[in-house]
Amino acid sequence: MALKLFELVGADETRPFSPFCWRTRMALAHKGLGAETIPWCFTEKEAIAPHQSEKVPVLLDDDKAVVDSWVIANYLEDAYPEQPSLFGGEGGRAVGRMLNWWGDMTVVGGIFPLIIADIPKNLKPVDAVYFRKTREARFGKPLEEIMAAREKSVEGFRKSLDPLRLTLKTQAYLGGAAPNYADYIVFGPFQWARVVSPFKLLAEDDPVYAWRERLLAAFDGMARKSPGYDV
Amino acid sequence: MALKLFELVGADETRPFSPFCWRTRMALAHKGLGAETIPWCFTEKEAIAPHQSEKVPVLLDDDKAVVDSWVIANYLEDAYPEQPSLFGGEGGRAVGRMLNWWGDMTVVGGIFPLIIADIPKNLKPVDAVYFRKTREARFGKPLEEIMAAREKSVEGFRKSLDPLRLTLKTQAYLGGAAPNYADYIVFGPFQWARVVSPFKLLAEDDPVYAWRERLLAAFDGMARKSPGYDV
Repeated sequence: MALKLFELVGADETRPFSPFCWRTRMALAHKGLGAETIPWCFTEKEAIAPHQSEKVPVLLDDDKAVVDSWVIANYLEDAYPEQPSLFGGEGGRAVGRMLNWWGDMTVVGGIFPLIIADIPKNLKPVDAVYFRKTREARFGKPLEEIMAAREKSVEGFRKSLDPLRLTLKTQAYLGGAAPNYADYIVFGPFQWARVVSPFKLLAEDDPVYAWRERLLAAFDGMARKSPGYDV
Repeated sequence: MALKLFELVGADETRPFSPFCWRTRMALAHKGLGAETIPWCFTEKEAIAPHQSEKVPVLLDDDKAVVDSWVIANYLEDAYPEQPSLFGGEGGRAVGRMLNWWGDMTVVGGIFPLIIADIPKNLKPVDAVYFRKTREARFGKPLEEIMAAREKSVEGFRKSLDPLRLTLKTQAYLGGAAPNYADYIVFGPFQWARVVSPFKLLAEDDPVYAWRERLLAAFDGMARKSPGYDV
Protein backbone atom coordinates (compact mmCIF):
# COMPACT_ATOMS: atom_id res chain seq x y z
CA MET A 1 0.00 0.00 0.00
CA ALA A 2 1.38 3.37 -1.05
CA LEU A 3 -1.13 6.19 -0.99
CA LYS A 4 -0.47 9.53 -2.63
CA LEU A 5 -2.83 12.49 -2.73
CA PHE A 6 -2.79 15.38 -5.16
CA GLU A 7 -3.79 18.39 -3.06
CA LEU A 8 -4.50 21.95 -4.11
CA VAL A 9 -1.99 24.51 -2.83
CA GLY A 10 -1.13 28.09 -3.62
CA ALA A 11 2.19 29.88 -3.33
CA ASP A 12 2.87 28.13 -0.02
CA GLU A 13 2.98 24.38 -0.44
CA THR A 14 2.44 23.86 3.28
CA ARG A 15 -1.06 25.36 3.09
CA PRO A 16 -3.24 22.88 1.24
CA PHE A 17 -6.69 24.25 0.68
CA SER A 18 -9.75 23.14 -1.35
CA PRO A 19 -12.85 22.00 0.52
CA PHE A 20 -12.79 18.73 -1.37
CA CYS A 21 -9.16 17.88 -0.61
CA TRP A 22 -9.79 18.52 3.07
CA ARG A 23 -12.69 16.10 3.04
CA THR A 24 -10.26 13.49 1.76
CA ARG A 25 -7.53 14.43 4.25
CA MET A 26 -9.94 13.99 7.12
CA ALA A 27 -11.22 10.71 5.63
CA LEU A 28 -7.68 9.35 5.37
CA ALA A 29 -6.97 10.32 8.98
CA HIS A 30 -10.25 8.71 10.10
CA LYS A 31 -9.16 5.50 8.38
CA GLY A 32 -5.75 5.75 10.04
CA LEU A 33 -4.09 5.92 6.63
CA GLY A 34 -1.09 8.03 5.77
CA ALA A 35 -0.70 9.48 2.30
CA GLU A 36 2.17 11.26 0.66
CA THR A 37 0.99 14.67 -0.45
CA ILE A 38 1.65 15.87 -4.00
CA PRO A 39 1.17 19.64 -4.05
CA TRP A 40 -0.82 20.73 -7.09
CA CYS A 41 -1.72 24.17 -8.45
CA PHE A 42 -4.74 25.26 -10.52
CA THR A 43 -2.82 25.54 -13.79
CA GLU A 44 -1.00 22.22 -13.52
CA LYS A 45 -3.64 20.37 -15.50
CA GLU A 46 -1.10 18.17 -17.23
CA ALA A 47 0.06 16.65 -13.93
CA ILE A 48 -3.31 14.99 -13.32
CA ALA A 49 -4.42 14.52 -16.93
CA PRO A 50 -3.00 10.95 -17.00
CA HIS A 51 -5.47 10.13 -14.22
CA GLN A 52 -8.46 11.34 -16.26
CA SER A 53 -9.11 14.32 -14.07
CA GLU A 54 -8.97 18.08 -14.31
CA LYS A 55 -9.57 18.60 -10.62
CA VAL A 56 -8.25 17.48 -7.27
CA PRO A 57 -8.36 15.53 -5.05
CA VAL A 58 -6.87 12.65 -6.98
CA LEU A 59 -5.86 9.71 -4.82
CA LEU A 60 -3.28 7.21 -6.04
CA ASP A 61 -3.36 3.82 -4.37
CA ASP A 62 -0.36 2.06 -5.90
CA ASP A 63 -1.22 2.15 -9.60
CA LYS A 64 -4.92 2.88 -9.14
CA ALA A 65 -6.15 6.48 -9.47
CA VAL A 66 -9.38 7.53 -7.74
CA VAL A 67 -10.95 10.86 -8.64
CA ASP A 68 -13.54 13.05 -6.82
CA SER A 69 -13.83 13.37 -3.04
CA TRP A 70 -17.10 11.42 -2.78
CA VAL A 71 -15.77 8.59 -4.94
CA ILE A 72 -12.57 8.55 -2.90
CA ALA A 73 -14.52 8.28 0.37
CA ASN A 74 -16.45 5.33 -1.03
CA TYR A 75 -13.24 3.77 -2.30
CA LEU A 76 -11.55 4.07 1.09
CA GLU A 77 -14.58 2.61 2.86
CA ASP A 78 -14.58 -0.43 0.55
CA ALA A 79 -10.82 -0.91 0.13
CA TYR A 80 -10.06 -0.57 3.84
CA PRO A 81 -13.05 -2.22 5.54
CA GLU A 82 -11.07 -3.20 8.64
CA GLN A 83 -10.35 0.44 9.45
CA PRO A 84 -12.94 2.64 11.24
CA SER A 85 -16.03 3.17 9.11
CA LEU A 86 -16.54 6.50 7.40
CA PHE A 87 -20.30 6.07 7.08
CA GLY A 88 -21.45 3.91 9.98
CA GLY A 89 -23.21 1.44 7.71
CA GLU A 90 -24.94 1.42 4.35
CA GLY A 91 -27.74 3.74 5.46
CA GLY A 92 -25.20 6.37 6.39
CA ARG A 93 -23.45 5.98 3.07
CA ALA A 94 -26.70 6.28 1.11
CA VAL A 95 -27.97 9.41 2.82
CA GLY A 96 -24.39 10.71 2.85
CA ARG A 97 -24.74 11.14 -0.91
CA MET A 98 -27.45 13.72 -0.27
CA LEU A 99 -25.51 15.39 2.52
CA ASN A 100 -22.56 15.68 0.13
CA TRP A 101 -24.74 17.55 -2.38
CA TRP A 102 -26.09 19.74 0.41
CA GLY A 103 -22.52 20.43 1.50
CA ASP A 104 -21.48 21.32 -2.04
CA MET A 105 -24.39 23.64 -2.63
CA THR A 106 -25.04 25.20 0.75
CA VAL A 107 -21.64 25.18 2.42
CA VAL A 108 -19.10 25.34 -0.42
CA GLY A 109 -21.48 27.44 -2.52
CA GLY A 110 -22.38 29.63 0.45
CA ILE A 111 -18.80 30.27 1.54
CA PHE A 112 -17.34 30.90 -1.91
CA PRO A 113 -18.71 34.43 -2.50
CA LEU A 114 -17.69 35.37 1.06
CA ILE A 115 -13.97 34.61 0.55
CA ILE A 116 -13.52 34.68 -3.21
CA ALA A 117 -11.35 37.80 -3.46
CA ASP A 118 -9.09 36.55 -0.67
CA ILE A 119 -8.20 33.38 -2.55
CA PRO A 120 -5.89 34.80 -5.27
CA LYS A 121 -3.77 36.49 -2.57
CA ASN A 122 -2.68 32.97 -1.65
CA LEU A 123 -1.81 31.86 -5.17
CA LYS A 124 1.22 31.99 -7.42
CA PRO A 125 0.86 34.80 -9.99
CA VAL A 126 0.02 32.45 -12.87
CA ASP A 127 -2.67 30.71 -10.81
CA ALA A 128 -4.04 34.00 -9.48
CA VAL A 129 -4.56 35.19 -13.06
CA TYR A 130 -6.23 31.90 -13.99
CA PHE A 131 -8.46 31.95 -10.91
CA ARG A 132 -9.57 35.55 -11.42
CA LYS A 133 -10.30 35.05 -15.10
CA THR A 134 -12.31 31.84 -14.74
CA ARG A 135 -14.25 32.86 -11.61
CA GLU A 136 -15.06 36.35 -12.82
CA ALA A 137 -16.42 34.77 -16.01
CA ARG A 138 -18.57 32.43 -13.91
CA PHE A 139 -20.00 35.16 -11.66
CA GLY A 140 -20.05 37.89 -14.31
CA LYS A 141 -18.33 40.49 -12.13
CA PRO A 142 -15.05 41.31 -10.40
CA LEU A 143 -14.11 39.15 -7.40
CA GLU A 144 -14.02 42.19 -5.13
CA GLU A 145 -17.56 43.09 -6.13
CA ILE A 146 -18.86 39.57 -5.45
CA MET A 147 -17.44 39.80 -1.95
CA ALA A 148 -18.22 43.47 -1.24
CA ALA A 149 -21.33 42.99 0.89
CA ARG A 150 -20.04 40.02 2.87
CA GLU A 151 -20.53 41.56 6.29
CA LYS A 152 -24.23 41.54 5.49
CA SER A 153 -24.53 38.46 3.28
CA VAL A 154 -22.77 36.23 5.83
CA GLU A 155 -26.04 36.36 7.77
CA GLY A 156 -27.83 34.41 5.07
CA PHE A 157 -25.03 31.87 5.02
CA ARG A 158 -25.23 31.42 8.78
CA LYS A 159 -28.99 30.97 8.57
CA SER A 160 -28.57 28.30 5.88
CA LEU A 161 -26.69 26.18 8.43
CA ASP A 162 -29.78 25.82 10.62
CA PRO A 163 -30.27 22.10 9.88
CA LEU A 164 -26.71 21.47 11.12
CA ARG A 165 -27.10 23.84 14.06
CA LEU A 166 -30.33 22.22 15.24
CA THR A 167 -28.80 18.75 14.89
CA LEU A 168 -25.93 19.80 17.15
CA LYS A 169 -28.45 20.54 19.91
CA THR A 170 -28.86 16.82 20.52
CA GLN A 171 -25.63 15.22 19.28
CA ALA A 172 -21.97 16.27 19.16
CA TYR A 173 -21.42 15.40 15.50
CA LEU A 174 -23.38 14.63 12.35
CA GLY A 175 -21.91 11.14 12.74
CA GLY A 176 -23.40 10.92 16.26
CA ALA A 177 -21.24 10.83 19.40
CA ALA A 178 -18.08 10.75 17.25
CA PRO A 179 -17.33 12.36 13.88
CA ASN A 180 -17.47 10.52 10.60
CA TYR A 181 -17.50 11.42 6.92
CA ALA A 182 -20.78 13.30 7.29
CA ASP A 183 -18.86 15.80 9.42
CA TYR A 184 -15.89 15.98 7.06
CA ILE A 185 -18.25 16.83 4.18
CA VAL A 186 -19.22 20.01 5.99
CA PHE A 187 -15.94 20.68 7.77
CA GLY A 188 -13.83 20.58 4.58
CA PRO A 189 -15.32 23.85 3.29
CA PHE A 190 -14.72 25.57 6.64
CA GLN A 191 -11.09 24.49 6.64
CA TRP A 192 -10.72 25.71 3.04
CA ALA A 193 -11.92 29.15 4.18
CA ARG A 194 -9.70 29.12 7.26
CA VAL A 195 -6.57 28.50 5.18
CA VAL A 196 -7.14 31.32 2.69
CA SER A 197 -9.26 34.00 4.35
CA PRO A 198 -9.34 35.93 7.63
CA PHE A 199 -13.09 36.48 7.30
CA LYS A 200 -15.13 35.26 10.27
CA LEU A 201 -17.79 32.94 8.89
CA LEU A 202 -19.21 31.99 12.28
CA ALA A 203 -20.07 33.82 15.48
CA GLU A 204 -18.20 32.47 18.48
CA ASP A 205 -21.39 31.65 20.37
CA ASP A 206 -22.69 29.52 17.50
CA PRO A 207 -22.91 25.76 18.19
CA VAL A 208 -21.48 25.32 14.69
CA TYR A 209 -18.38 27.24 15.83
CA ALA A 210 -17.90 24.85 18.75
CA TRP A 211 -18.38 21.88 16.42
CA ARG A 212 -15.75 23.30 14.05
CA GLU A 213 -13.38 23.73 17.00
CA ARG A 214 -13.78 20.06 17.87
CA LEU A 215 -12.95 19.06 14.31
CA LEU A 216 -9.95 21.38 14.22
CA ALA A 217 -8.73 19.47 17.28
CA ALA A 218 -9.44 16.00 15.81
CA PHE A 219 -6.60 13.65 14.85
CA ASP A 220 -4.17 15.35 17.19
CA GLY A 221 -5.09 18.79 15.86
CA MET A 222 -4.30 17.94 12.25
CA ALA A 223 -6.49 20.64 10.70
CA ARG A 224 -5.50 23.31 13.22
CA LYS A 225 -1.80 22.60 12.70
CA SER A 226 -2.18 23.31 9.01
CA PRO A 227 -1.35 27.00 8.59
CA GLY A 228 -4.42 29.21 8.46
CA TYR A 229 -6.15 32.21 9.94
CA ASP A 230 -7.48 32.39 13.48
CA VAL A 231 -11.17 32.52 12.65
CA MET B 1 -48.48 -5.51 21.01
CA ALA B 2 -51.29 -3.11 20.23
CA LEU B 3 -50.28 0.00 18.34
CA LYS B 4 -52.51 3.02 18.00
CA LEU B 5 -51.70 6.24 16.17
CA PHE B 6 -53.29 9.63 16.63
CA GLU B 7 -53.39 11.11 13.13
CA LEU B 8 -54.44 14.55 12.00
CA VAL B 9 -57.60 14.64 9.90
CA GLY B 10 -60.01 17.30 8.73
CA ALA B 11 -63.72 17.02 7.96
CA ASP B 12 -63.13 13.67 6.25
CA GLU B 13 -61.68 11.13 8.64
CA THR B 14 -60.48 8.99 5.74
CA ARG B 15 -58.01 11.68 4.63
CA PRO B 16 -55.26 11.82 7.21
CA PHE B 17 -52.83 14.59 6.48
CA SER B 18 -49.90 16.19 8.35
CA PRO B 19 -46.39 15.68 7.01
CA PHE B 20 -45.28 14.30 10.34
CA CYS B 21 -48.06 11.72 10.67
CA TRP B 22 -47.28 10.48 7.16
CA ARG B 23 -43.65 9.97 8.11
CA THR B 24 -44.88 7.74 10.91
CA ARG B 25 -47.40 5.91 8.70
CA MET B 26 -44.65 5.08 6.22
CA ALA B 27 -42.30 4.04 9.04
CA LEU B 28 -44.91 1.69 10.48
CA ALA B 29 -45.47 0.13 7.06
CA HIS B 30 -41.70 -0.22 6.56
CA LYS B 31 -41.53 -2.10 9.85
CA GLY B 32 -44.46 -4.25 8.80
CA LEU B 33 -46.48 -3.02 11.75
CA GLY B 34 -50.18 -2.33 11.74
CA ALA B 35 -51.61 0.43 13.88
CA GLU B 36 -55.16 1.38 14.69
CA THR B 37 -55.74 4.95 13.63
CA ILE B 38 -57.30 7.45 16.00
CA PRO B 39 -58.51 10.42 13.95
CA TRP B 40 -57.61 13.70 15.61
CA CYS B 41 -58.46 17.32 14.78
CA PHE B 42 -56.50 20.49 15.52
CA THR B 43 -58.76 21.65 18.33
CA GLU B 44 -58.95 18.32 20.15
CA LYS B 45 -56.05 19.18 22.43
CA GLU B 46 -57.62 17.43 25.39
CA ALA B 47 -57.55 14.06 23.62
CA ILE B 48 -53.76 13.96 23.56
CA ALA B 49 -53.04 16.04 26.67
CA PRO B 50 -52.81 12.88 28.83
CA HIS B 51 -49.87 11.85 26.63
CA GLN B 52 -47.99 15.10 27.30
CA SER B 53 -48.39 16.36 23.78
CA GLU B 54 -50.17 19.17 21.97
CA LYS B 55 -49.38 17.80 18.53
CA VAL B 56 -49.60 14.63 16.53
CA PRO B 57 -48.37 12.07 15.71
CA VAL B 58 -48.72 10.38 19.07
CA LEU B 59 -48.07 6.65 19.01
CA LEU B 60 -49.48 4.39 21.71
CA ASP B 61 -47.72 1.06 22.13
CA ASP B 62 -49.85 -0.69 24.73
CA ASP B 63 -49.62 1.73 27.65
CA LYS B 64 -46.57 3.61 26.40
CA ALA B 65 -47.05 6.94 24.57
CA VAL B 66 -44.40 8.15 22.15
CA VAL B 67 -44.54 11.73 20.87
CA ASP B 68 -42.91 13.44 17.83
CA SER B 69 -42.28 11.75 14.49
CA TRP B 70 -38.49 11.61 14.88
CA VAL B 71 -38.75 10.16 18.38
CA ILE B 72 -41.32 7.66 17.13
CA ALA B 73 -39.02 6.53 14.30
CA ASN B 74 -36.22 5.97 16.79
CA TYR B 75 -38.59 4.17 19.13
CA LEU B 76 -39.77 1.83 16.37
CA GLU B 77 -36.19 1.12 15.30
CA ASP B 78 -35.20 0.15 18.84
CA ALA B 79 -38.41 -1.57 19.95
CA TYR B 80 -38.73 -3.68 16.79
CA PRO B 81 -35.12 -4.50 15.87
CA GLU B 82 -36.07 -7.72 14.08
CA GLN B 83 -38.16 -5.83 11.53
CA PRO B 84 -36.55 -4.09 8.52
CA SER B 85 -34.29 -1.23 9.60
CA LEU B 86 -35.52 2.33 9.15
CA PHE B 87 -32.02 3.80 9.15
CA GLY B 88 -29.66 1.17 7.75
CA GLY B 89 -27.33 1.35 10.74
CA GLU B 90 -26.24 3.90 13.32
CA GLY B 91 -24.59 6.20 10.76
CA GLY B 92 -27.86 6.49 8.91
CA ARG B 93 -29.70 7.26 12.11
CA ALA B 94 -27.18 9.93 13.16
CA VAL B 95 -27.17 11.82 9.86
CA GLY B 96 -30.92 11.20 9.62
CA ARG B 97 -31.30 13.69 12.47
CA MET B 98 -29.88 16.38 10.18
CA LEU B 99 -31.98 15.25 7.22
CA ASN B 100 -35.04 15.48 9.45
CA TRP B 101 -34.25 19.12 10.23
CA TRP B 102 -33.60 19.79 6.55
CA GLY B 103 -36.94 18.17 5.75
CA ASP B 104 -38.73 20.27 8.35
CA MET B 105 -37.21 23.53 7.19
CA THR B 106 -36.84 23.11 3.46
CA VAL B 107 -39.65 20.73 2.55
CA VAL B 108 -42.36 21.29 5.16
CA GLY B 109 -41.42 24.96 5.46
CA GLY B 110 -41.16 25.33 1.69
CA ILE B 111 -44.49 23.67 0.90
CA PHE B 112 -46.51 25.35 3.63
CA PRO B 113 -46.89 28.82 2.04
CA LEU B 114 -47.73 27.15 -1.29
CA ILE B 115 -50.78 25.27 0.04
CA ILE B 116 -51.71 27.16 3.19
CA ALA B 117 -55.04 28.63 2.01
CA ASP B 118 -56.15 25.25 0.66
CA ILE B 119 -55.84 23.60 4.05
CA PRO B 120 -58.88 25.10 5.86
CA LYS B 121 -61.13 23.95 2.99
CA ASN B 122 -60.47 20.43 4.27
CA LEU B 123 -61.23 21.15 7.91
CA LYS B 124 -64.32 21.15 10.12
CA PRO B 125 -65.54 24.72 10.71
CA VAL B 126 -64.15 24.93 14.24
CA ASP B 127 -60.73 23.73 13.10
CA ALA B 128 -60.74 25.99 10.05
CA VAL B 129 -61.27 28.99 12.31
CA TYR B 130 -58.48 27.83 14.63
CA PHE B 131 -56.11 27.16 11.73
CA ARG B 132 -56.71 30.52 10.07
CA LYS B 133 -56.35 32.45 13.30
CA THR B 134 -53.12 30.80 14.48
CA ARG B 135 -51.41 30.68 11.06
CA GLU B 136 -52.35 34.21 10.06
CA ALA B 137 -50.89 35.37 13.39
CA ARG B 138 -47.68 33.46 12.62
CA PHE B 139 -47.27 34.84 9.09
CA GLY B 140 -48.73 38.27 9.81
CA LYS B 141 -51.11 38.24 6.83
CA PRO B 142 -54.16 36.50 5.39
CA LEU B 143 -53.68 32.92 4.19
CA GLU B 144 -54.76 33.85 0.68
CA GLU B 145 -52.12 36.56 0.55
CA ILE B 146 -49.35 34.20 1.69
CA MET B 147 -50.26 31.87 -1.16
CA ALA B 148 -51.05 34.49 -3.81
CA ALA B 149 -47.77 34.32 -5.73
CA ARG B 150 -47.39 30.54 -5.62
CA GLU B 151 -47.16 30.04 -9.37
CA LYS B 152 -43.95 32.05 -9.16
CA SER B 153 -42.64 31.13 -5.72
CA VAL B 154 -42.91 27.40 -6.41
CA GLU B 155 -39.80 27.84 -8.53
CA GLY B 156 -37.71 28.66 -5.47
CA PHE B 157 -39.14 25.64 -3.68
CA ARG B 158 -38.27 23.36 -6.60
CA LYS B 159 -34.74 24.76 -6.67
CA SER B 160 -34.34 24.11 -2.95
CA LEU B 161 -34.77 20.39 -3.68
CA ASP B 162 -31.55 20.26 -5.71
CA PRO B 163 -29.62 18.18 -3.15
CA LEU B 164 -32.37 15.54 -3.37
CA ARG B 165 -32.64 15.84 -7.14
CA LEU B 166 -28.90 15.40 -7.68
CA THR B 167 -28.82 12.42 -5.33
CA LEU B 168 -31.53 10.73 -7.38
CA LYS B 169 -29.24 10.85 -10.41
CA THR B 170 -27.18 8.00 -8.96
CA GLN B 171 -29.55 6.13 -6.65
CA ALA B 172 -33.27 5.39 -6.61
CA TYR B 173 -33.89 6.49 -3.03
CA LEU B 174 -32.25 8.48 -0.26
CA GLY B 175 -31.99 5.13 1.48
CA GLY B 176 -30.09 3.70 -1.51
CA ALA B 177 -31.56 1.01 -3.77
CA ALA B 178 -34.64 0.76 -1.53
CA PRO B 179 -36.44 3.43 0.50
CA ASN B 180 -35.98 3.91 4.21
CA TYR B 181 -36.84 6.55 6.78
CA ALA B 182 -34.66 9.13 5.00
CA ASP B 183 -37.16 8.97 2.14
CA TYR B 184 -40.20 9.09 4.41
CA ILE B 185 -38.85 12.26 6.04
CA VAL B 186 -39.11 14.03 2.68
CA PHE B 187 -42.09 12.14 1.28
CA GLY B 188 -44.34 12.88 4.26
CA PRO B 189 -44.59 16.58 3.37
CA PHE B 190 -45.43 15.78 -0.26
CA GLN B 191 -48.19 13.43 0.82
CA TRP B 192 -49.54 16.09 3.19
CA ALA B 193 -49.78 18.48 0.25
CA ARG B 194 -51.34 15.84 -2.03
CA VAL B 195 -54.15 15.19 0.47
CA VAL B 196 -55.19 18.80 0.95
CA SER B 197 -54.22 20.78 -2.17
CA PRO B 198 -54.55 20.44 -5.95
CA PHE B 199 -51.47 22.62 -6.46
CA LYS B 200 -48.74 21.00 -8.56
CA LEU B 201 -45.56 21.23 -6.51
CA LEU B 202 -43.42 19.31 -9.02
CA ALA B 203 -43.02 19.28 -12.77
CA GLU B 204 -43.71 15.89 -14.30
CA ASP B 205 -40.25 15.62 -15.84
CA ASP B 206 -38.55 16.20 -12.48
CA PRO B 207 -36.66 13.19 -11.05
CA VAL B 208 -38.21 14.16 -7.71
CA TYR B 209 -41.64 13.60 -9.28
CA ALA B 210 -40.63 10.08 -10.37
CA TRP B 211 -39.27 9.39 -6.87
CA ARG B 212 -42.55 10.57 -5.32
CA GLU B 213 -44.46 8.28 -7.70
CA ARG B 214 -42.39 5.32 -6.50
CA LEU B 215 -43.18 6.15 -2.88
CA LEU B 216 -46.88 6.60 -3.65
CA ALA B 217 -46.72 3.05 -5.00
CA ALA B 218 -44.80 1.63 -2.01
CA PHE B 219 -46.44 -0.78 0.43
CA ASP B 220 -49.05 -1.85 -2.09
CA GLY B 221 -49.88 1.75 -2.96
CA MET B 222 -50.70 2.75 0.60
CA ALA B 223 -50.12 6.47 0.14
CA ARG B 224 -51.81 6.64 -3.26
CA LYS B 225 -54.87 4.82 -1.95
CA SER B 226 -55.34 7.47 0.69
CA PRO B 227 -57.73 10.02 -0.84
CA GLY B 228 -55.94 13.01 -2.34
CA TYR B 229 -55.48 15.13 -5.42
CA ASP B 230 -53.92 13.91 -8.64
CA VAL B 231 -50.76 16.04 -8.51
